[in-house]
Amino acid sequence: MIATVSNKTQPPIDAKAQVSEFMQSFQDQICAGLEELDGKAKFKQDQWQREEGGGGRSRVMTEGRIFEKGGVNFSEVYGSHLPPSILKQYPEAANQIFYATGTSMVLHPRNPYVPTVHLNYRYFQVGNIWWFGGGLDLTPYYGFAEDAQFLHKTLKAACDRHNPNYYPVFKAWCDDYFYLKHRGETRGVGGIFFDYQNSEPKLYKNSNDSPKAEQMSNDLTDFPERSWQEIFNFVQDCAGSFLKAYVPIAQRRQDTPFGERERDFQLYRRGRYVEFNLVYDRGTIFGLQTNGRTESILMSLPPLVRWEYDYHPEPDTPESELYELFLKPQDWINWNL
Amino acid sequence: MIATVSNKTQPPIDAKAQVSEFMQSFQDQICAGLEELDGKAKFKQDQWQREEGGGGRSRVMTEGRIFEKGGVNFSEVYGSHLPPSILKQYPEAANQIFYATGTSMVLHPRNPYVPTVHLNYRYFQVGNIWWFGGGLDLTPYYGFAEDAQFLHKTLKAACDRHNPNYYPVFKAWCDDYFYLKHRGETRGVGGIFFDYQNSEPKLYKNSNDSPKAEQMSNDLTDFPERSWQEIFNFVQDCAGSFLKAYVPIAQRRQDTPFGERERDFQLYRRGRYVEFNLVYDRGTIFGLQTNGRTESILMSLPPLVRWEYDYHPEPDTPESELYELFLKPQDWINWNL
Repeated sequence: MIATVSNKTQPPIDAKAQVSEFMQSFQDQICAGLEELDGKAKFKQDQWQREEGGGGRSRVMTEGRIFEKGGVNFSEVYGSHLPPSILKQYPEAANQIFYATGTSMVLHPRNPYVPTVHLNYRYFQVGNIWWFGGGLDLTPYYGFAEDAQFLHKTLKAACDRHNPNYYPVFKAWCDDYFYLKHRGETRGVGGIFFDYQNSEPKLYKNSNDSPKAEQMSNDLTDFPERSWQEIFNFVQDCAGSFLKAYVPIAQRRQDTPFGERERDFQLYRRGRYVEFNLVYDRGTIFGLQTNGRTESILMSLPPLVRWEYDYHPEPDTPESELYELFLKPQDWINWNL
Repeated sequence: MIATVSNKTQPPIDAKAQVSEFMQSFQDQICAGLEELDGKAKFKQDQWQREEGGGGRSRVMTEGRIFEKGGVNFSEVYGSHLPPSILKQYPEAANQIFYATGTSMVLHPRNPYVPTVHLNYRYFQVGNIWWFGGGLDLTPYYGFAEDAQFLHKTLKAACDRHNPNYYPVFKAWCDDYFYLKHRGETRGVGGIFFDYQNSEPKLYKNSNDSPKAEQMSNDLTDFPERSWQEIFNFVQDCAGSFLKAYVPIAQRRQDTPFGERERDFQLYRRGRYVEFNLVYDRGTIFGLQTNGRTESILMSLPPLVRWEYDYHPEPDTPESELYELFLKPQDWINWNL
């Protein structure tokens, strides 16, 4: 798969330890930031071990001032039973010990004006094969272009510090990946998403996620080979931009008054989150396929959810505006507020 | 796949029309029976057409006396884009027009002492290939061995009228099919489930659902070839036993008093129903893969659902009894009440 591996592109000997340490301190950092933001609830931690190798620490906050439920999970697993989805792409990885680590987070606020947010950054290594993946996406129940633009600008700034092509490709990838085909809706206002980032001089590969990101990546004829360290630096920078991107949005919306109507709509829309995670999400499927810890994998599911047959929002309401404006890919960076 | 097709085993020329007519009258019959049982709410019908061919009629009841939400869906679809899951098994079916019809139902009662129930009977035909499938399974929130036994006895009686091997094999198949691997739990107390029933002299084939049913089927060395009509008669008999099996159970439990504790547990357990339908259910996946009508496919999802991180029932409670006794395969027919 990697024809020539220069020294520059090989991971350092302690790559796994470096990433693992970062993923844990990143978990610490966002948990501290979210506790400060919430001001009431604290995270409770469960440490767990996986029978076939590895383990993790799951942290959950419930009944907070802002967060009805929030989960931040660090895991580090290894084993020889690679899931079929990865074996298909890398048949040469069969019968080798794989290593995967990452930190993921989903927050379900109580106030319907505060958006749900998800992030996940992860690293995978087996033999000579390695890659980073991850991203962050925002799911509002009531949309504010100002919030979408602020989030995207913050993520773009992190991307642009490393490569000007990152943001446009990873933004398109996010729009396409977090898409509910059976609903014809994006999950929310997007953000960034990337996978299989390694030294191969190609931004997008090995996935059927996004024809648009693939085209944009193919158009970059002189995209350079990157070292392990360069990509790791980029991932750390993205991760580090989460609190900067989300906390101001949550603070701006946290005191917006709401009633039964807004709450009902939030519970209904949370159903889409469940549908996405159980039907499409690669992290969830990887976890269930590798006998991960079910409670940690499904920590992302909302505390309370409603399904209503054939619901459609009334025209010219904030609810219909969500569908018309915010559940479609938009150029938030250049949005005219 | 079918080496020799005798006249006996070929479907009649009007097979599709016969099954379609039955599936519609079956929908009428169970809707009438459920409206009578509920006594308050009525089903509302949506007729819909599928762009690539076919359509259906979805009937939903909400806010009834017994049923918080109930959906009964008839559909009849055809087209040339066979889903990958079926193409894998029948590559010779590629580029032929397939036909699929069926009636499915899920009921979500409000009272946690009344069990949720699901049924689905279906028929598939493409070229020379045809089969019937379906089943019925019961999901209690608070378990009663008496109810489980009554249901199984009613289903066994319907099966036994056609072949003494049906019930044991289809009961085992149901236990294995309605199993949440990531939870280590059956969906409920089971019932019967079968698929790919045609004239090939084999009860179980073409699926990885149930090693136990496969073994039992392999042990039947003299299992006979069956005609299309024989299998259709059997399916009609199974379908006809639904009201007989479920109505007495619902009537027996409908007035049991309950409080917040039982309601909370019901909402929590409904999460398992969502997990099963979105992660494992063949009907749901077939529907989403064939661009079915999303609202009709996901009509089965509960009206209100709760997820709670790492919940475990207190020992020696009715809730823990559900896990220990009712979410495991049991020999309900010979259960000592």
